[in-house]
Amino acid sequence: MAQHSEPTDADFLSDFATMSEFGATGHGGVDRQAATAPDGAQRAWMAALLQQRGARVQYDEIGNQLGLFELRPGAPYVLVGSHMDSQPTAGKYDGAYGVLAAAHVAARLTARWSADGVLPKYNLAVVNWFNEEGSRFKPSMMGSGVFTGKLDAESILTVEDVTGVSVRDALDRLGQRGNAAPPEVAAYAEIHVEQGKGLEKDGLTIGVVEATWGANKYELTVHGEQGHTGATLMADRSDALLGASMLVVAAREIADAFEDGPLQTSVGQMLIYPNSPVVIASEVTILLDLRSPDAEVLAGADDLLSARIAEVEAKANVEVRRATSHSWGVQPYTDAGIALAEQVADDLGLRRGRTMTLAGHDSTNMKDVVPTVFLFVPSVDGVSHNEAELTHDEDLLDGLRMLTETVRRLCDGALG
Amino acid sequence: MAQHSEPTDADFLSDFATMSEFGATGHGGVDRQAATAPDGAQRAWMAALLQQRGARVQYDEIGNQLGLFELRPGAPYVLVGSHMDSQPTAGKYDGAYGVLAAAHVAARLTARWSADGVLPKYNLAVVNWFNEEGSRFKPSMMGSGVFTGKLDAESILTVEDVTGVSVRDALDRLGQRGNAAPPEVAAYAEIHVEQGKGLEKDGLTIGVVEATWGANKYELTVHGEQGHTGATLMADRSDALLGASMLVVAAREIADAFEDGPLQTSVGQMLIYPNSPVVIASEVTILLDLRSPDAEVLAGADDLLSARIAEVEAKANVEVRRATSHSWGVQPYTDAGIALAEQVADDLGLRRGRTMTLAGHDSTNMKDVVPTVFLFVPSVDGVSHNEAELTHDEDLLDGLRMLTETVRRLCDGALG
Repeated sequence: MAQHSEPTDADFLSDFATMSEFGATGHGGVDRQAATAPDGAQRAWMAALLQQRGARVQYDEIGNQLGLFELRPGAPYVLVGSHMDSQPTAGKYDGAYGVLAAAHVAARLTARWSADGVLPKYNLAVVNWFNEEGSRFKPSMMGSGVFTGKLDAESILTVEDVTGVSVRDALDRLGQRGNAAPPEVAAYAEIHVEQGKGLEKDGLTIGVVEATWGANKYELTVHGEQGHTGATLMADRSDALLGASMLVVAAREIADAFEDGPLQTSVGQMLIYPNSPVVIASEVTILLDLRSPDAEVLAGADDLLSARIAEVEAKANVEVRRATSHSWGVQPYTDAGIALAEQVADDLGLRRGRTMTLAGHDSTNMKDVVPTVFLFVPSVDGVSHNEAELTHDEDLLDGLRMLTETVRRLCDGALG
Repeated sequence: MAQHSEPTDADFLSDFATMSEFGATGHGGVDRQAATAPDGAQRAWMAALLQQRGARVQYDEIGNQLGLFELRPGAPYVLVGSHMDSQPTAGKYDGAYGVLAAAHVAARLTARWSADGVLPKYNLAVVNWFNEEGSRFKPSMMGSGVFTGKLDAESILTVEDVTGVSVRDALDRLGQRGNAAPPEVAAYAEIHVEQGKGLEKDGLTIGVVEATWGANKYELTVHGEQGHTGATLMADRSDALLGASMLVVAAREIADAFEDGPLQTSVGQMLIYPNSPVVIASEVTILLDLRSPDAEVLAGADDLLSARIAEVEAKANVEVRRATSHSWGVQPYTDAGIALAEQVADDLGLRRGRTMTLAGHDSTNMKDVVPTVFLFVPSVDGVSHNEAELTHDEDLLDGLRMLTETVRRLCDGALG
């Protein structure tokens, strides 16, 4: 491996600015949905950046991008990364920060090991997971889902976006579907912006994620009957859009009913057919989430939702079919990983606290198969999935220091 | 003009079956949205059918298709027709019946006049109005709106569908935008399926439309703030989809509040941004209609809507902007036209009654500029904007007889 110097904090911030040009919206945000042209161009840029530092870059069957630094031939890898795809109009930090931080961690550590003439116990790989966001292709966390065996690659490759383009075709157009066998993984680390206000409110720099909130995600399809909006008498209607709207309102009322839950509910997407101004909708599909850190609250909310669905069916004269699209309980991260992260933060003098993640992340999948450390840095005002998303440079750089030292210890076998 | 024999009832039903193949869905319905390929192909077929009977076929600046039978050079025209475009999945009778009936009326009358060696007072023209439905390009009743001077052709030609194709380009691709000057019009007649249950319930064959219901149609845009559906706390949300859903529910509750109104309310379309499962929507636009035959009820419903909008803004922490997209009062058809139609029905021994139209039609525009007769035939179970839409052959043929005699008298100057 060629000799490199450690990249500086200024190098990181410069690369971050360059990275944020891919899919830039012109209003401070980005639009880099999975396997679109900007996502593909950014991955090509990331590949070059990793190769310059000596990595071998490969794509697996679902388009996960891996930059492998094989220092000790045949040894397992510590994997570090996140995702670079985004929502349609998103902030520039969500996911992308974690991948770029991982690339700089690898550059710093490989330079250091090379200069010191020492070899860590494990190899190191940077990962850019495919389609974490799930806005273009559902479900979300697709790349890490296939990687961890939770999703079947063959069926996922046939998933289509709303224009009928499949995951397989979208990746092939970019030349970013490969056949690389997954490396043996010893541990996983990821750093991400918090997307909440907790760290900022408590004056902390590093959040050590100890568990995910539980979540029940439902796909609810409301079946009505097409008719003319003007001519069909109110009493004769079976209006799928009315039924779906009542469910959106019900979701909010369920959250209000558990005011001290804590409980979060939401509907972000509604697909309407035929969606014409003068036609009563015959079919509307919504994705409705219930999330809580308390399993009992989640179960209570679920019961309430069932009651509300029955009520909507009667009131709107529609039929509601419910399918679970995703569900997970309140799930802890490994205690040893939490302890390691806390030790690192203390050694670096970084103000840290434990936190939970309300959102799903690739680390949510990875933690179920390997020892995993998941870290947060603060989000100003908790703004996320919004072009105004912001994390201060100082926090980005502290997070990078934190991740570097955490990964160094993981490579030395801190979690076995 | 060449000699032709009068087409028979069997000819009409055969042409109706052929016509219904354009854009056929395979489930008894059609998909022929304005200026799509099936709409264009069907218009070309109609042009040939009219030309075979001696018409000169022309297109005006907004793509209205006219088949002119100029019998008395320089005399004004009696115009008869409807529209052949449809909703995305629609029945095969809505509009198309009226255009084909008009073409057969023209074929019958011109053959009769030719055989008898008499000339009517007025010329006769068949019209197929452009984009009555308004599902692909808004607003609806576009062709008759421009023809009657209610809409401006230049601005209407720039209207785009959701894929960014303009009316101008869509028509030009079909070669169906022309520059024909409008003929001078003496009177207008249209026949349409009822899209309601009134005639069927009363055992009638012909509905003589005496007035339109009043309607207020609003475009309501709900402004919220994008955020992560999982991570943004409920109290911090400004959820445009929640606000829009509350408005859909409110529209239904307003109708329920005027149970004896009569009042019809509806929302058939909702446009959501960014419409991703994990992003709180920042902007949702709905089209909300209030319709009543009673001006006082309509005004009361309008007041209630204003109150509900203010309530939604407060409860969902959103801003709602309201624009009127369309509004009309309770409007009568001319008494002389109603009397003429009733006399014709009685002379033909057809069971007739007066009715109102809840839906807008091209005749709604035409009645404001020339004496207009508007007729309904029954719809089975009132089903419309649905592939199951049905009018029995017997009613189609009685309607054709009714329209033929009405137009004959109009051409002889029955309304001046």
